[in-house]
Amino acid sequence: MASAQKYEKTDEPGATANVAQPEAYNGAQSVVETLVNSGVDVVFGNPGTSEMHFVDALDRVPGMRPVLGLFEGVATGAADGYARLAGRPAATLLHLGPGLGNGLANLHNARKAASPVVNVVGNHASWHQAYETPLASDVTGFARPVSHWVVETQSALTAAADAARAVQAARTAPGQIATLILPADSAWDPATGPAPALPTVPPSPVADHAIASAAAALREGSAAIMIRGTALYDQGLTAAGRIARLTGARLFSDTFAPRLRRGRGVPRVERMPYRAADALAALAGTRTLILVGTQAPLAFFAYPGQSTVLTPEGTRVLVLAQPHEDGSAALEALADVLGIPETALSSAASHVISAGGSLGDTWNVARLYRSVARLLPEDAIISDEAVTASFSGYELLADAAPHDILQLTGGAIGDGIPVATGAAVAAPGRRVVSLEGDGSAMYTVQALWTQAREQLDITTVVFANRSYAVLADELNRVGAHGGGHSAASMLDLHNPTINWVELAGSMGIEATSVTDGTGFDIAFAAAMRSRGPRLIEAVL
Amino acid sequence: MASAQKYEKTDEPGATANVAQPEAYNGAQSVVETLVNSGVDVVFGNPGTSEMHFVDALDRVPGMRPVLGLFEGVATGAADGYARLAGRPAATLLHLGPGLGNGLANLHNARKAASPVVNVVGNHASWHQAYETPLASDVTGFARPVSHWVVETQSALTAAADAARAVQAARTAPGQIATLILPADSAWDPATGPAPALPTVPPSPVADHAIASAAAALREGSAAIMIRGTALYDQGLTAAGRIARLTGARLFSDTFAPRLRRGRGVPRVERMPYRAADALAALAGTRTLILVGTQAPLAFFAYPGQSTVLTPEGTRVLVLAQPHEDGSAALEALADVLGIPETALSSAASHVISAGGSLGDTWNVARLYRSVARLLPEDAIISDEAVTASFSGYELLADAAPHDILQLTGGAIGDGIPVATGAAVAAPGRRVVSLEGDGSAMYTVQALWTQAREQLDITTVVFANRSYAVLADELNRVGAHGGGHSAASMLDLHNPTINWVELAGSMGIEATSVTDGTGFDIAFAAAMRSRGPRLIEAVL
Repeated sequence: MASAQKYEKTDEPGATANVAQPEAYNGAQSVVETLVNSGVDVVFGNPGTSEMHFVDALDRVPGMRPVLGLFEGVATGAADGYARLAGRPAATLLHLGPGLGNGLANLHNARKAASPVVNVVGNHASWHQAYETPLASDVTGFARPVSHWVVETQSALTAAADAARAVQAARTAPGQIATLILPADSAWDPATGPAPALPTVPPSPVADHAIASAAAALREGSAAIMIRGTALYDQGLTAAGRIARLTGARLFSDTFAPRLRRGRGVPRVERMPYRAADALAALAGTRTLILVGTQAPLAFFAYPGQSTVLTPEGTRVLVLAQPHEDGSAALEALADVLGIPETALSSAASHVISAGGSLGDTWNVARLYRSVARLLPEDAIISDEAVTASFSGYELLADAAPHDILQLTGGAIGDGIPVATGAAVAAPGRRVVSLEGDGSAMYTVQALWTQAREQLDITTVVFANRSYAVLADELNRVGAHGGGHSAASMLDLHNPTINWVELAGSMGIEATSVTDGTGFDIAFAAAMRSRGPRLIEAVL
Repeated sequence: MASAQKYEKTDEPGATANVAQPEAYNGAQSVVETLVNSGVDVVFGNPGTSEMHFVDALDRVPGMRPVLGLFEGVATGAADGYARLAGRPAATLLHLGPGLGNGLANLHNARKAASPVVNVVGNHASWHQAYETPLASDVTGFARPVSHWVVETQSALTAAADAARAVQAARTAPGQIATLILPADSAWDPATGPAPALPTVPPSPVADHAIASAAAALREGSAAIMIRGTALYDQGLTAAGRIARLTGARLFSDTFAPRLRRGRGVPRVERMPYRAADALAALAGTRTLILVGTQAPLAFFAYPGQSTVLTPEGTRVLVLAQPHEDGSAALEALADVLGIPETALSSAASHVISAGGSLGDTWNVARLYRSVARLLPEDAIISDEAVTASFSGYELLADAAPHDILQLTGGAIGDGIPVATGAAVAAPGRRVVSLEGDGSAMYTVQALWTQAREQLDITTVVFANRSYAVLADELNRVGAHGGGHSAASMLDLHNPTINWVELAGSMGIEATSVTDGTGFDIAFAAAMRSRGPRLIEAVL
């Protein structure tokens, strides 16, 4: 370990003072400009020292909007929500392995949502990586489990081209997680300029024989179509509605879908039940299950003595479109092959809630959802992380004004508030409603601060049941008992009870607590009329 | 993708209904009992469905204390703090890849601190892992970058033995991160019972010739000893003080050390400066740098044109003890070889703060530290994550009552409040003071809830400068400019200003805000007299 090195001497490769001058291009600037050229113009970040040149470049390159999160999970979850609404990636800006680590759970969710995301993760300068310094970390190792594409830039001269490749990877259908690791010297060394945008890889067309097979199955009858991807909210959904109306086929979405269009006048799609027995019952009698952009239903968790596969015996599974294929175009082609006129829209029984009727005096989750359904403005966005409450409440939103709903795709709680944040950035002018369990809301509660800073039109409703309610149920379902004090203490969120009005207020969010239906109606209606972020603590 | 599987049919291996009956042993119970037998009797957890049998076992096995964190980074940071005080591992209980992901940053810090930690991470049941379900994740991949040891249990019958090996790995000197991945079926299937504790791997003795070489260097003069590990707070520090007193050698700690003993009457150890130029200046004229459990100083970050190695030219580096060796015993042996009597304690000029003197009217970081130094009770523990403030304030604590200080070893902010939490669990009866920057405090602010639930004697002081102050400095140091609005927006924490009194209050913590020295004196003195957690927002 003997060492005697002069401070001024820099025989380490790269440790030369060739940092770009203020007026010249550097690697960071070439990356930012390449991202903007490639259609990435929002960055959700929480930078550190190794990302300072990227931060600096934000003022030197026009067109990139920086949004600060006070925790990396906020940034990655917001990028997920942004992608679900914008249909294209935002960038994240993260600090070495640990900073990326803090963002991994929501990148896991984004990966399961097939959301395109471009992570830019700083690393130590190349020569510095040779030493065991405090922040030295295996950045690639951190990135690997959630990334489809990982590259560490080797030089400022190639940084721009790497950035263009990262965007291309993210925009490869149906959407991928691309992680570009940018060593500090690749950011500050001189570069030649931005790289041109690369062609993206759009969804592949579906082969005619797949459409013919699906058409034959639908003509046989007793078919169901299970859909994921853009076909749950674009013209593919309209086509699916036509098919369902004319053939009697049932339409399903996954239990957790990245984005769905719902509400009055929108073709009705059933949610695949969460419980295995319920899912099997839902598909009972189905001769053919036609898949569009998804897989046949699987149990969320394993349970003793239960199978993971939830397709009933005797049900044939037919793939119309794989996730990387154009499911929407396939559904439109299928409707045409079946000879269904374009006017034949689905109009599943729509029991529109009368504007003046009573919502009832009983205060519970159902009452809350009925109020949301009545008061939700046209074209709202719902970020749904209400966990236990969401299963019972979901159906009650079916007749609300048309809206998009974003669900927790990867099961990693702590996505809902960040996803709402990113969705609001992507869709200014649209009202966002964030339905949150109190346990999950605590995970990335720092996102409220970003909502306040950006003055986003988001109303967060916290279902304050003061427990990890889903776990109390799961404890029994897996065959454990949980009668004891220790187990109870791990599932219960009383002692102390979280005061959500204070918590939101501490981050600049106007908040109120309600304990009955009328109170909720008033608070929610007021929130829908106001601008900027609000929070309603619904004590249940 | 055709599939037709009957729900009741379980031809998947493991999907048999052989779950252990309530009265019988299961894998989870065998793991918990093995951990307790091996000296691991606290678990910091945030469990999910796949960990429910472990949770259930907490009531069936006596001797394991569960502590709930509302975010996994709280649990892993608390395990780090616990280990630093207890000298042995706590367990963490985490939920698959994403749950582990949320805990990675603080496991990175724990790894750099050489803190022993045993992570128990649930995974899906073995047969369920074959499917792309929402929470399916590469758990081993998540674990690898921070773990010295990773094993996924293959059967309930081997789970107990794996748990014993995990504890052995964690307790291998100087302390390691061991991650045991426990599939749900290995938790619920029948097991035979706990495994016996395995022998731990204590620090190795230092060879005589290393002690002789160090003694010769000290006799030559102009030597410095740089120390990390237990020798910074146990009898090794006393020996180092004797050596310094008699030979004139200077004593250094790393810029960031896991744990140090400081205060009146404790041998004085200089902190290696954070800035490269200052570190080189500190070592100027040093003929021999003797290392005990650490490496020669390195720059924290790379900067354009600067070397990473900070040992001055002409300074010889000599290793007395490697990190896995017994540095404390080596220092004691060295003092004996040098013939230094045990009574020759270091008594570096101790300018004791007079109990009655004025601390000054100017309200700034230095004033705050002087107040802490005067009011700190005997044998307190300081968790130091004040970042920018800590560099200037550190020296001002040198004459406080004797205390232990815990620093941010891995540079991943968000460790301070959890570390304080774990330290308080490990050391009941000792007062814990958590010094926090506002930026870093927001990372794992959920830890305050755990402090309230467990009624820990922790006083958190938030340095509310409303910025990532360290980054504003770093922006200039790396040669970036940061004059623009976008860059400033990424470093500034105004708009909105966080109200720490409300934030702490929302989680059941009594809090107060102070804006001058007298106010701080009163609030801090009151906190030191009270029991349970408090928070003081120091607006600077």
